[in-house]
Formats: sequence, C-alpha cells, structure tokens
Amino acid sequence: MAKIYSASTTAPVNIATLKYWGKRDTKLNLPTNSSISVTLSQDDLRTFTTAAASEAFTKDTLWLNGTEESVTGARTSACLAELRALRKSLEDADPSLPPLSTYKLHIVSENNFPTAAGLASSAAGFAALVRAIADLYELPQSAEELSRIARQGSGSACRSLFGGYVAWEMGEKEDGSDSRAVQIATETDWPDMRAAILVVSAKKKETSSTTGMQTTAKTSPLFKHRVEVVVPERFKVMSKSILDKDFETFGQLTMADSNQFHAVCLDSSPPVFYMNDVSRNVISLIEKVNNLAGRVVAAYTFDAGPNAVLYYLEKDEPIVLGLLKAALPDLDGWQNKATVSAAVPDGVSEDMYDSLKDGVSRIILTGVGPSPQKIAESLVDESGLPKSA
Amino acid sequence: MAKIYSASTTAPVNIATLKYWGKRDTKLNLPTNSSISVTLSQDDLRTFTTAAASEAFTKDTLWLNGTEESVTGARTSACLAELRALRKSLEDADPSLPPLSTYKLHIVSENNFPTAAGLASSAAGFAALVRAIADLYELPQSAEELSRIARQGSGSACRSLFGGYVAWEMGEKEDGSDSRAVQIATETDWPDMRAAILVVSAKKKETSSTTGMQTTAKTSPLFKHRVEVVVPERFKVMSKSILDKDFETFGQLTMADSNQFHAVCLDSSPPVFYMNDVSRNVISLIEKVNNLAGRVVAAYTFDAGPNAVLYYLEKDEPIVLGLLKAALPDLDGWQNKATVSAAVPDGVSEDMYDSLKDGVSRIILTGVGPSPQKIAESLVDESGLPKSA
Repeated sequence: MAKIYSASTTAPVNIATLKYWGKRDTKLNLPTNSSISVTLSQDDLRTFTTAAASEAFTKDTLWLNGTEESVTGARTSACLAELRALRKSLEDADPSLPPLSTYKLHIVSENNFPTAAGLASSAAGFAALVRAIADLYELPQSAEELSRIARQGSGSACRSLFGGYVAWEMGEKEDGSDSRAVQIATETDWPDMRAAILVVSAKKKETSSTTGMQTTAKTSPLFKHRVEVVVPERFKVMSKSILDKDFETFGQLTMADSNQFHAVCLDSSPPVFYMNDVSRNVISLIEKVNNLAGRVVAAYTFDAGPNAVLYYLEKDEPIVLGLLKAALPDLDGWQNKATVSAAVPDGVSEDMYDSLKDGVSRIILTGVGPSPQKIAESLVDESGLPKSA
Repeated sequence: MAKIYSASTTAPVNIATLKYWGKRDTKLNLPTNSSISVTLSQDDLRTFTTAAASEAFTKDTLWLNGTEESVTGARTSACLAELRALRKSLEDADPSLPPLSTYKLHIVSENNFPTAAGLASSAAGFAALVRAIADLYELPQSAEELSRIARQGSGSACRSLFGGYVAWEMGEKEDGSDSRAVQIATETDWPDMRAAILVVSAKKKETSSTTGMQTTAKTSPLFKHRVEVVVPERFKVMSKSILDKDFETFGQLTMADSNQFHAVCLDSSPPVFYMNDVSRNVISLIEKVNNLAGRVVAAYTFDAGPNAVLYYLEKDEPIVLGLLKAALPDLDGWQNKATVSAAVPDGVSEDMYDSLKDGVSRIILTGVGPSPQKIAESLVDESGLPKSA
C-alpha cells in the first residue's frame, strides 16, 4: 500500500503567572493583553501526538485519547490550513518533495493526565498538533512563527511551543501576525522552579473560559483599566524578575495577578466564579505561610477553575511539600516524593488546612520543563490507524 | 436625689446599594467615594437607645445589650465631645438651661437582632446614640448636621439618621464638614421596596471592614479606578433610578456594585474574602431567576460578610418569597409571612437552591423604613441604671 509519512512529538502544559483573559479578536484568538507563563515538565504532564500523512488516507481524522474527534471545527481547520499552505510552498519550490500537503492526515493524540481535571490540556494539545505536523512537513519555520498558528487553535497553546519561561506578546496588527510567543528564559536559566498542582473537585459546571472572558471584556468596568494600565507594567516587572531569578517579585506578582484575574471575573455581569471555598482556603494557607516566613515561600495561581497551582523554589520543598504532606497525606501523587516528611510551620494550625482534605482530590508535583520533544515512538500502526484503537 | 434628664429613640439599619469601601481619613471616617443605601424598617431591625444625664452620675457609662461597654474609645468619645459642645453653646446663650453638657451620661442601648449575625449594627448603634443625645440636649441641628457627628462613630451610621433612600456625599473638605448624609427620597416616595436578609453562617472569622478597606485602598490597583471613575457615574445613575422608581436600573447597579466591591477586595494584597460558596450560590440563583424572567425580579447585595440581602418590589413577593420558602421552608423568620406559599419558577431546579438549606441560618423579611423615632419608653430606671440590668 501507499507509504505512510509520520512524525511524533510530546508537548507540555503551561500555567500562566500573568493571566491571559480577554480577546480583541475571537476568530484569530488575539488577546487584549500580553501574558507570561511557566512551561511544566513533560515527565508529569504532556500531550503525545503522532501526525501521519498518506495518499491512502481518505479523510483528515483525529483520535484524542482513543476517541475520534472532529477536525472540522474552525480552530483545528485553521491550524491545518496554515500548516498545509507552508508545506505547499516548500513543494512548489522543490517538486522532488512528496506532496504531503495534498494528503489527508491521521492525527493520534494522548494525554498522560485526566483531561477532565481542568488542567490546561487544550494548550498542550494544540501545541503538540502543530509541532507534530510541522515536523511531518519538515517546515523550516521557527517555534515563534509556529506559535502564531498554534494560537489560532487555543490562545495559550502558543506558549506551549517553548520551554522555560514564556511570554505571549499580544501584538498590535489586525491580522495577528505579531501576536506570538517568545521565550523569556530557558528552563536551564532558572532550573529550580517547582510546581505543585492541587486538583480541586468542582461541584458545579464552570463557565467556559471562552464565554467567561467575553463576558468580562464586555461588562467589567474594571477590565479596561487592568489590560491598559495594570498588565503592561506587570509584564515588564515580571519579565525582569524571571531574568533576575527574583522569586520574591515573581511570586508576589503571580499571586496578585491571579487575584486580579478572578476579581475582573467577579466584576462581570453576570459575575463569573472559578474559585471555591477550597481554593480560598489554599490562598489563606499560603498567605499565612509566607507571612510567617516574612518572604514568598510559595506563590499560588488559579486558572479558570478551582485547581490551585503553587510555584516555589527547590530549596523550599521541605517547607511547601512538608505542609502539603501534613495536609494531604493520603493523596495519589506522593509516589515519587516518598522522601518528603510531613512538617507544619510554627504558627500554622490544623484548622488552616484540614478543610483541604475533603476538597483536594489529587496532587501533581512537577517543575519547569523544556519545549516540545520530537520522539521516535509512534501512536499509529503500519496501516495508519491508532495503535491504541 | 438629683433630677435625671433622659430621651429615648430607635434607629434603623441601612444596607448600602452603592458601597462605601475605603477611607481618605481614618480618624474622621472620611470616605474615598460617595455611597447610597436603603434604610430598613425598625419593626424588624433597630437599635433602641436611651440617653440620660444627671448631676448625680459619676462617669459616662454605656450599656449595650445589658453589658457595660467602654465609652473611652476614640469613636464614641468624638461623638460625645461634639454633642456636648453643641449643648454647651445653647447653655452659653441661655443660662436658664440646665447645664447638661457638664453632666455625665448614662447610655443604655439594645438591639432587637443578634449583633453577632453580622448585620450592620454599628450603623444603627451610633445613629441611635447621636439621635438620643441630641434629643436629650434638645439640639436644633438638622439630621444632616448630626450625620457628620454619627459618621465619626461609624461611617455608615450617618446614613441611618434618615429614612428611605439615603446618600452619603463623600465631601471634599479636609475637616469633613461637607461629608454628610442627605435623603434622596423618603420611604413613602417609593414605599414598595422589600428586603429579605439571608443570614449565612460564616465558618471562619472575617477581616474587619476597617482593616479590609485599608488593605484595599493601599494595595488594590483597581481600587483607584473604581472610586475615581466608576462610582461617581454610578452615583448619578442610581440616584436617578430611585427618583424614577426604576427598579430595573436600581437592581442592576446594586448587584454590579456589590460584585465590584468584592472584586476590589479580591484584588487586594493579601486578598480579602467576605462571600463564601453559599453567598455565590445565592448570586447564581438570583441571576438565574432574573434571567428566566427577562428582568430584575430581585437584586442581591453583600456587605463585609457572607450574608445576602435581596431587594425586590412588593409585587414580586410571590416569586421571591415563594422561591425562598421552597428553598428554606423551616427557617426561623417566616412567622409573619405565613400566607406565602412555596413556588419555584419554571426552569429553576432544586440543585440550584438545595445548597442553601445547610448554609442559611435565619431569614429576616423586611422593607424600606423611616428615620430614627423618638419614643416615650425608657431603658433607664429612676436611679438612672438600665432597667434590664
């Protein structure tokens, strides 16, 4: 049968420390403000995607975690069209190249974490999709250039094309050509950044972030001031804090910006809520620990859901993980941290954390990590179908 | 024994619809923005205060709900000093007057609602204190003038010197002489305003409003925009909506301003939380009901605590109280509303309100009411001591 061309990659999750909230163009996913994120290690959270092309394939098909998903959605279609156009220009310049741009695609994608958990899976997903197809097509474009394409799949996906510490510059042009991700620092420039994700069980269905950010942009009187005045200043200061490895400033701003993002959600009509009482108890606990230490030991941040992400430096692992172990001793997630022993800082009483026991369902211990990784292993078999299927 | 002069009054609670949050002068209680409130009926919520003066009294003494309280605090002292100065000027002009300004005061005060419930008891308390002493001293000053004195006891107390719909104009002068309450409309101008207070049990101690508003004023980047840009506009529109009896506009702004007040609390460092998951469930429920009706049936507002206050018009009592009766059938508070029958609007499912059953401990059904009332009944006995003691 016809030859099957394929390429495989893994792509990371990223968690914003300066939040993206609001689109100035919903079709192109152009944001109302620039944002900054930390790319997390693919050892713990990643999407693994194989992209295959063959003359024998009859239609573009996507399998996500074993289930066939539509590729006809506007966001996926936009990414495929842009990637094919770039491949086409290569083929036009060199007719000896196989005409992959004319072949249908089989894309097989798997997450190593529960999609349901409300972790930023769409970012890793679209980053892996774009990276895998770009590798399959042997495109010469840089990650920065590819980030413009991934952005159209899911805004924050553009940041997952880089490792380390990443900025998404909002850009100014109407066509979005200058709205792309750039790397502020690599994971090796500031390697000792750790992250603990507390998966909080949400009782009620949340407002989707797409809907929520449109409600805020349209109705919050405070939103305009945030995006025009507050964020541009924070962007400069946070970028510098990363280059300076200044965790105190980085952590303070990370907490303040998470709180302000949820504040403009609350300032919306109708108000949009993502944090719950468990989320707030995590905030109170971390504020208490930092207050007792007289410095930022850990910084919390919350995306469009109740899950808490705590950033801290490796040197403070005994304090942060010691407390989490005391608060959440029996959770799935401690396996690879068997050495950590429970320890509660003086001044922290049990009533400050025992509410977490009922509210946190899972803990994921990870840290800053690299960009998408090209790998030899493939998720498609010799007939071009998912091995898992 | 020496003659005992006394006067008694009751004073109402007021619940802001345009929130006071932030002081530009902490000693004088000068606010960073003007605010608007509705005065609630004294049939349901009131402070009853008797002020007595006698040559025989040896020290200023205050009994609150049967317990002796300090009168040496800066706030109480400031009120007593200002009232005595006004009395002194009367005595200077007319030597035939008894020199009450030189006599010690016995003040006996009782609330007909639990102080603990987190209802604005200090507002009613200081309004009653100032009104009772002003009556005892037979001061000619208007309620507007007296409101400057009550403001120094507790900021929002200035609004409780009026009935109906009341504005606290922030003023501009450094001495606070133009920071006073004025009446926008009387309780008879717009008589069909009803209020339902849902007393929500708070698990953890809250940040005091004095501390909270200072944290917000000092640290929230969004706060300045709220007080300088958003509130002045809302003040005009809400004042007009009251004069126009335009509940749709009044209700929309009431909800939006409650949400924005809690938003700037969240935007503070450390963040300040007053609402909990029960509060948020009340918001979601009311937003749902209004959305189904295609108009504002009820408007929620939350002060510095989790209690919900719902404003609605008498004509909508069957909808609002019907739903509350269905959600909270067994609560203390339905006695005087025996006629209300439980009724759930189409489209509202039980899961939208059954969480309230565990979180709401008491319901208070009331409405707009008049200014402080002078009454003959006294709380002091012939020896000048509390009758209740």
